[in-house]
Amino acid sequence: MRAISSRTTIPILSGIKLVLTEDELILTGSDTDISIEIKIPVSEDLTVESTGSIVLPARFFSEIIKKLPGKDFSFEVKESFQTQIVSENSDFTINGLDANNYPRLPEIPDDSTFTISGKTFREIINETQFAVATQESRLVLTGVHFNFSPDQIKAVGTDSHRLSERTISLENGPQTETDLIIPGKSLQELSRIIGEGNPEVKVCPGESQVLFEIGNILFYSRLLEGSYPDTDRLLPTESSTSVQFELSELSSALDRASLVTHAGRNNVVKLSLDTENQKVVLSGESAEIGNVEEEVSFKNLSGENLELSFNPDYLRDALRASITDSIVMKFTQPLRPFTVVPDKEDINFVQLITPVRTF
Amino acid sequence: MRAISSRTTIPILSGIKLVLTEDELILTGSDTDISIEIKIPVSEDLTVESTGSIVLPARFFSEIIKKLPGKDFSFEVKESFQTQIVSENSDFTINGLDANNYPRLPEIPDDSTFTISGKTFREIINETQFAVATQESRLVLTGVHFNFSPDQIKAVGTDSHRLSERTISLENGPQTETDLIIPGKSLQELSRIIGEGNPEVKVCPGESQVLFEIGNILFYSRLLEGSYPDTDRLLPTESSTSVQFELSELSSALDRASLVTHAGRNNVVKLSLDTENQKVVLSGESAEIGNVEEEVSFKNLSGENLELSFNPDYLRDALRASITDSIVMKFTQPLRPFTVVPDKEDINFVQLITPVRTF
Repeated sequence: MRAISSRTTIPILSGIKLVLTEDELILTGSDTDISIEIKIPVSEDLTVESTGSIVLPARFFSEIIKKLPGKDFSFEVKESFQTQIVSENSDFTINGLDANNYPRLPEIPDDSTFTISGKTFREIINETQFAVATQESRLVLTGVHFNFSPDQIKAVGTDSHRLSERTISLENGPQTETDLIIPGKSLQELSRIIGEGNPEVKVCPGESQVLFEIGNILFYSRLLEGSYPDTDRLLPTESSTSVQFELSELSSALDRASLVTHAGRNNVVKLSLDTENQKVVLSGESAEIGNVEEEVSFKNLSGENLELSFNPDYLRDALRASITDSIVMKFTQPLRPFTVVPDKEDINFVQLITPVRTF
Repeated sequence: MRAISSRTTIPILSGIKLVLTEDELILTGSDTDISIEIKIPVSEDLTVESTGSIVLPARFFSEIIKKLPGKDFSFEVKESFQTQIVSENSDFTINGLDANNYPRLPEIPDDSTFTISGKTFREIINETQFAVATQESRLVLTGVHFNFSPDQIKAVGTDSHRLSERTISLENGPQTETDLIIPGKSLQELSRIIGEGNPEVKVCPGESQVLFEIGNILFYSRLLEGSYPDTDRLLPTESSTSVQFELSELSSALDRASLVTHAGRNNVVKLSLDTENQKVVLSGESAEIGNVEEEVSFKNLSGENLELSFNPDYLRDALRASITDSIVMKFTQPLRPFTVVPDKEDINFVQLITPVRTF
């Protein structure tokens, strides 16, 4: 169901394909960007009388299955693709479609396959996916750029206003470096399928698609083509002002400031770092509604005095993705991007936010 | 907040009025159909420095209060209705409006006031309100018709396709009979405000408004004018077929049949009562999707064979409002309204549903 779109232009893709063999039942859903295939092996819970295939309307079929009265049901494809589902006294007939007309999934060779931990993969998705572009004016930015190498994964997401780059060590990465740009939406679904546990994820990169195998689930995603910008050169190497915050302190101050700025037309907060008087003030204003000003407590503030303005949502997203209780913000000039990094130097995770001009 | 509409045509009604006297803080919200007033007495949690009034943007004000950092806050109306709210390091200024421009609530004389139990009132609302008309073509049907007398309340809701009538005994009803038609939407809010407990509800009927007092809350609702149809004459006094169902059995069979009929254009199920063979079959069909047929188990089936069709949503609503585990359905002819009543004769609760013609 997760792969099935309610707004598909290809009618058969609003259905689930069911293929029953002597050994297993294979269910497939697809919206062409994402395809998901699940295999249920024959067991005492699944007995086969004769093999075959059918496509059934996905939402309707899944609702019927949820609401059947009995513990078991029988399933039989009859003439003209009509499918009968019987459970206790309930007897459904569903109009199905010919499974031969269902698009075929790509065949992906398994010669450059490698395996990574589901927990690591889910983490790196959650730390970068939120930063990708949602508008398709530069298609390549709607994906996360992954670089898998023998000993690490590096992932970058950016919408050109903010950026998130995370590097995590790997024990058994691919033997040759592999670059993939995977759509943000695919990664969201993949992260849900990986779930809270730590399943092994087998990665099989193909030409225009990548396949992830997680237990009995095959997850196919389209890859984005084109060259991803060289983001490393965007990361500032020096800073003239820096300050450390408790995540929770800064988050709630931002929430309050956003209340005001979200109500107005100009969603911008102002941060004043006064190193002489050791004072940090966050403020927001909206002509319609009013204004807010707040002294934020901090840990270490050093360098030059600085005043800058930015979209509070970007910083809020950055804080939400943060994995330490405390973060360090490093600045150069009021209109140059600033960074948000963990307070622990051994964690390779940098987020970049571009300020806005307010005068 | 419950009385404030996001789509008001009177700008000041998107605000909450605050009036601070020596004794209490009074908050008022209104959308002209419903008005709610709450009084907070002076205590160690509310201290007054000087009295006055202001109207503040409701949503914004309530969100600010929820997100203030401290346990306490100070509140001060300054020049030009600007209002300052300070809590710990957070300092908000909100643009307010002159409270003198806020519409006045009606004055309702308390000469015909009476009191009923909140639990009883909530019950009778939940048992009748769902059946009122949502379209305003006959305005009077968008309300529930209440008849309060010294020893009982009778309430009726109908949208002309189905009807729900409930009578509950009262100990201290009004001395003279009182008829009120209260809009369904007002009753929904009132039921929420009464909540899960059993507070005393003081009812003060006025000319065009009714006031309910619940603890420190005053709830005003507009009354609907016009004459309510004489619904008693619609209730059949005899039946030729009757059947008893467990609520849960019939509900889940209806849920399954609705899956099919909701998917099609014609949301109609068919019920076949075969008294000779003691068999009840519920079925639904949709040309697009398929069909379902189900034998429903029942307790007592007697009278003449009957086959009829109806909108399953009406019966589902009726079952949801039912207060016994088992109900009795009584029929006369295929196209005449049928009734749903509790299996206990001492409960005065009858629901009426009109079948539809399918040929």
